[in-house]
Amino acid sequence: MLTNSRKVRIEWGDCDPAGIIFYPRYFEIFDASTAHLFEAALGMTKHEMFSRLAFAGFPLVKTQSRFLSPTRFGDDVEVTSTISFGRSSFEVAHRLTKNGELCAECNEKRVWTVRDADGKLKSHPVPPEVLAKFG
Amino acid sequence: MLTNSRKVRIEWGDCDPAGIIFYPRYFEIFDASTAHLFEAALGMTKHEMFSRLAFAGFPLVKTQSRFLSPTRFGDDVEVTSTISFGRSSFEVAHRLTKNGELCAECNEKRVWTVRDADGKLKSHPVPPEVLAKFG
Amino acid sequence: MLTNSRKVRIEWGDCDPAGIIFYPRYFEIFDASTAHLFEAALGMTKHEMFSRLAFAGFPLVKTQSRFLSPTRFGDDVEVTSTISFGRSSFEVAHRLTKNGELCAECNEKRVWTVRDADGKLKSHPVPPEVLAKFG
Amino acid sequence: MLTNSRKVRIEWGDCDPAGIIFYPRYFEIFDASTAHLFEAALGMTKHEMFSRLAFAGFPLVKTQSRFLSPTRFGDDVEVTSTISFGRSSFEVAHRLTKNGELCAECNEKRVWTVRDADGKLKSHPVPPEVLAKFG
Repeated sequence: MLTNSRKVRIEWGDCDPAGIIFYPRYFEIFDASTAHLFEAALGMTKHEMFSRLAFAGFPLVKTQSRFLSPTRFGDDVEVTSTISFGRSSFEVAHRLTKNGELCAECNEKRVWTVRDADGKLKSHPVPPEVLAKFG
Repeated sequence: MLTNSRKVRIEWGDCDPAGIIFYPRYFEIFDASTAHLFEAALGMTKHEMFSRLAFAGFPLVKTQSRFLSPTRFGDDVEVTSTISFGRSSFEVAHRLTKNGELCAECNEKRVWTVRDADGKLKSHPVPPEVLAKFG
Repeated sequence: MLTNSRKVRIEWGDCDPAGIIFYPRYFEIFDASTAHLFEAALGMTKHEMFSRLAFAGFPLVKTQSRFLSPTRFGDDVEVTSTISFGRSSFEVAHRLTKNGELCAECNEKRVWTVRDADGKLKSHPVPPEVLAKFG
Repeated sequence: MLTNSRKVRIEWGDCDPAGIIFYPRYFEIFDASTAHLFEAALGMTKHEMFSRLAFAGFPLVKTQSRFLSPTRFGDDVEVTSTISFGRSSFEVAHRLTKNGELCAECNEKRVWTVRDADGKLKSHPVPPEVLAKFG
């Protein structure tokens, strides 16, 4: 279970005066897609991850994206997200397609974090039970 | 067909540092819900409405909302939207519930618009074929 | 000091395919305007309010807005925000103008909150030192 | 005039439940920073560019970003944007700093577009009068 796909509707409010998606919205879609990938693998929402795991979020440290073909409000797109794990970090590759055509792709690198004694975020190895769920 | 319901997932990026939804996001949800209501009634997306109808958007002129109980990332909520038509305007009442509990409600008044000869938005009677589809 | 004004630039990404502001963005502007009003009166940012005051946020419980004239990307608008206090709640009236013309207005009712022993948000009287700063 | 700097306030609504900026907001900031860079060089807003130049937008085709240190609501950051031109495209490098410390950086590649006879966006050489203004 290293890959998850989901459908997303591009909405009017996601689009700019050119009539196409305002690209920061893609990153909102990708961010949610990473959460949905974890939910599919772990069987819990990101909200539940905070109470059930040694987890304080997985902030982004690096991303790169290409935008090949615009999408518009009313488009139903598919986002396929594939994860690969490092020790305290992981990478997710997102491919966003419309009717099978690749419209945008994004690679993101994130760090698994916990709170230290002072409540500050610090990186932490991805817990073994998380890795186990991803197989 | 004066009412439409849809499920919406509240995402991490919809929430603020208090851990609950940042309320302008509700208006994004309501705006999309109005579009989905029209899509359900007319059998076309909002994008298609622009090319198939005398239509240049239905900008909001007035809204009022109450927020009764917060929602959080990971929540699956239901939005039920009910429309009532005036001549060149219409009102939509949205009820957002979580597990049956009312969390937010919103009334919006919108104006049906077309472009005049100069390309400016002006109000226009809701086309009869639109009214007919809503029954 | 019950009123604060600030300038806001409407950006490309605030606007929708009709070329005018996507109205949920107005609520982002109003939400920030309330924070700026408190910052002007209290001499501390909202972030500092959390550590220096009995304060866990002022969630919105009710809002009503009218949109009279659209704004567009590139417009510089002025938002004037005026507060009136209840015991555990307050109301803020926002007026958004462009070159002196009223484009949107909004009334919001918010509740002052603190965290209870379980970490849940509960309403709480607005602290006297806050009221004193507003005069 | 190949570089422009501007101050940006990080707002409550820009931040997520971890209390730090939700990273798609950075891209909203960078997108607006590119528009402000053009405005500084050309002496016209992006809105004016549409009517005064052969211009239909400069959609993003590629971006890469690094996030080094989080920012929070109440932070005043500075964004410095530097442009370099190709024939029909250009790149903008953004550096976002807080008190002089680099928090995020982003490189974006955009294409200058015009509308073809059918109203579709197509790439087009950056007009000489634009290049001239950037010197």
